[in-house]
Amino acid sequence: MIEQILENARRASRTLGSADRVAMLLAIREALTLATDTVMQANVLDVALAEAQGMSAPMLDRLSLDRARWAQILASIDAVAKLPDPLGVQLDAFEHANGMRLRKITVPFGVIGIVFESRPNVAVDASILALKAGSAVVLRGSSSALNTNRALVNAMRAGLLAAGVDRCAISLIDSSDRAHVTALLHARGKVDLVIPRGGAALIAHVVENARVPVIETGVGVCHLYVHSSADLTQARAILLNGKVSRPGVCNSLETLLVDSAIAAEFFQDAFVELVAAGVEIRGDQRVCALSNLAVLATEDDFGREFLDLILAVKVVDGMEEALAHIERHSTRHSEAICATDDAACARFESAVDAAAVYVNASTRFTDGFEFGFAAEIGISTQKMHARGPMGLREIVTWKYLISGQGQVR
Amino acid sequence: MIEQILENARRASRTLGSADRVAMLLAIREALTLATDTVMQANVLDVALAEAQGMSAPMLDRLSLDRARWAQILASIDAVAKLPDPLGVQLDAFEHANGMRLRKITVPFGVIGIVFESRPNVAVDASILALKAGSAVVLRGSSSALNTNRALVNAMRAGLLAAGVDRCAISLIDSSDRAHVTALLHARGKVDLVIPRGGAALIAHVVENARVPVIETGVGVCHLYVHSSADLTQARAILLNGKVSRPGVCNSLETLLVDSAIAAEFFQDAFVELVAAGVEIRGDQRVCALSNLAVLATEDDFGREFLDLILAVKVVDGMEEALAHIERHSTRHSEAICATDDAACARFESAVDAAAVYVNASTRFTDGFEFGFAAEIGISTQKMHARGPMGLREIVTWKYLISGQGQVR
Repeated sequence: MIEQILENARRASRTLGSADRVAMLLAIREALTLATDTVMQANVLDVALAEAQGMSAPMLDRLSLDRARWAQILASIDAVAKLPDPLGVQLDAFEHANGMRLRKITVPFGVIGIVFESRPNVAVDASILALKAGSAVVLRGSSSALNTNRALVNAMRAGLLAAGVDRCAISLIDSSDRAHVTALLHARGKVDLVIPRGGAALIAHVVENARVPVIETGVGVCHLYVHSSADLTQARAILLNGKVSRPGVCNSLETLLVDSAIAAEFFQDAFVELVAAGVEIRGDQRVCALSNLAVLATEDDFGREFLDLILAVKVVDGMEEALAHIERHSTRHSEAICATDDAACARFESAVDAAAVYVNASTRFTDGFEFGFAAEIGISTQKMHARGPMGLREIVTWKYLISGQGQVR
Repeated sequence: MIEQILENARRASRTLGSADRVAMLLAIREALTLATDTVMQANVLDVALAEAQGMSAPMLDRLSLDRARWAQILASIDAVAKLPDPLGVQLDAFEHANGMRLRKITVPFGVIGIVFESRPNVAVDASILALKAGSAVVLRGSSSALNTNRALVNAMRAGLLAAGVDRCAISLIDSSDRAHVTALLHARGKVDLVIPRGGAALIAHVVENARVPVIETGVGVCHLYVHSSADLTQARAILLNGKVSRPGVCNSLETLLVDSAIAAEFFQDAFVELVAAGVEIRGDQRVCALSNLAVLATEDDFGREFLDLILAVKVVDGMEEALAHIERHSTRHSEAICATDDAACARFESAVDAAAVYVNASTRFTDGFEFGFAAEIGISTQKMHARGPMGLREIVTWKYLISGQGQVR
């Protein structure tokens, strides 16, 4: 099954680079619009089945499509269609001493696999970005969203057909069998890139089992370090925003580090606000000695991705202790400092090894849309190929074109 | 053992970004120069042991250091030291609508593992490039070169010490135990990148077993397609150069495709020259019908990396048949066309999916030095992160630095 899907996807991918990819995207949007009722009905069925099987409320919420989310999905297609073409961009050009001309030009990856969890928008977002970047996409969603994903893929394929494009440019692995994921992850030379989208367990499964190139995404244990020179009002706003605005996402804050010199003063108002927002504060012994709003943290609470209204807090004696803590516990996603001292900011920016390093701003901005990419296919937490939010630029590759007049070596 | 090496390497790597890396490289060159006799004696021992164990002549040649090769190794350190610093380069900069400033800046990978075969120059070349790029390097060479590699690493570490740098910035996995390679390949979060340098078996072993990011390098089944519009004299020179100048390397030619319209004429002189150079010509039935200098090829001969004075030859009926053959058998390394027709050249450049696509020039140019990178750490045949020859630019990563005045989302 996977072999045939990948062969068809490869064939389709060879036609995408020279196709009118803007028209293709708009045809897909049209087809999805026409299929609105079918998609909604499929989603209602998935949600009902999941509910009957006892899926938790937050997971059901992720699975559910409503009219507002649907409108957003359709609107994002327009936004991606309007982005500049990421293909054929000249990244470099030079001449060899022998007169040969060398050019480094962006080209499509070819076939991109996406392994994702329940959110149905991923099926559309990933397909649209991949197609715009000239690659065919092979989707493997969770079994709980199978009806929704089928309806979405059928509609998108109708759009491809209407645009005169090989419909195998979008494929769904229409099965809940885990063996198919393994087959996808082992298909060396047949799939050029796999991107996992989901929780830590899914990502670990993909990374551990892949024999094909993978971009690791998503797990974020983000720290905020409040330096002794910080503007405490600003720091409080950044802390609240990082922890409370959307605790279930990867760019939310999980740990707060505060310089001992200002800890008592900072905790006073900040903890009241956190508790008022429903946050459970788990502090080390020094934190608990300074505030009775904190409960004692265990060692495991540091470096943990709560994805919930829980915050680990630690008092540190200055920059180097904060850096050492972050070095030990960071997932290299997003880290922030609040400080007014320029040397402190520079030290933090230089020493912290993460995709995004913030000075006096919220980690919640680590996001493709916020970075101006119009959409994102994930947030890379690895250092190879892509780091941080991945837009179109991160899902193309390149080739060197060398043109000569008979040169030999 | 590996855990300790990687921990030390990580610690050392954190000091490299801000160190004087030019002085460091020159100190290493000085220390290697001082250690010349020790290195040579160690190499004589390795060669003697390998000879006693029946190593083949070409392999012994790869293993051997002589004064000329040694001088070349030392000279390449100077060349790399002089290259512009690849760190701190601003790749992008933009402002968010809310006033935050975002900058994308190159930074070191951290810890780079190199798994390589017998050639001792790799130990030095890879270390020098990694250090220049701000990363610590962990080397695992073949057991046949263990004494040489030990002498090289001891000298390089003496150089680091002389430069006041943590000597764990260069480490050797000083053991022939395969379990240590596996441990290196599984050390997620502890090694940021592994690059294999060697033959197809080594590369496959690394790619199949790695759970850490890997850049696949090296296997090259390179094709030359002689189009009906080709300048046949030029094509002959490119063919000879590609097959004969150094048949054991990855950018040499393995397969020749010739348009039927000019096949008889082209084979006449070209085959005589190939045979005179000692090349065995394995042709398909049409080739054998046109020339008695060819023996009949098996299906396996197409797509095979001979790394020897053997050439597979096929007659094709035009561009599309040539492209289909290359699509099926290419390892996406280097592919070439000889043609004077502009449309044919453009079609080939656009359709062929390879790191380097040549028009009227030899595939032998796919090389970091020829591409102007002064040295190379390998030639990537994958599409992720690096494609084609990898120099300094390909062994750095980046981070986003976001600077605000209290912005929240």
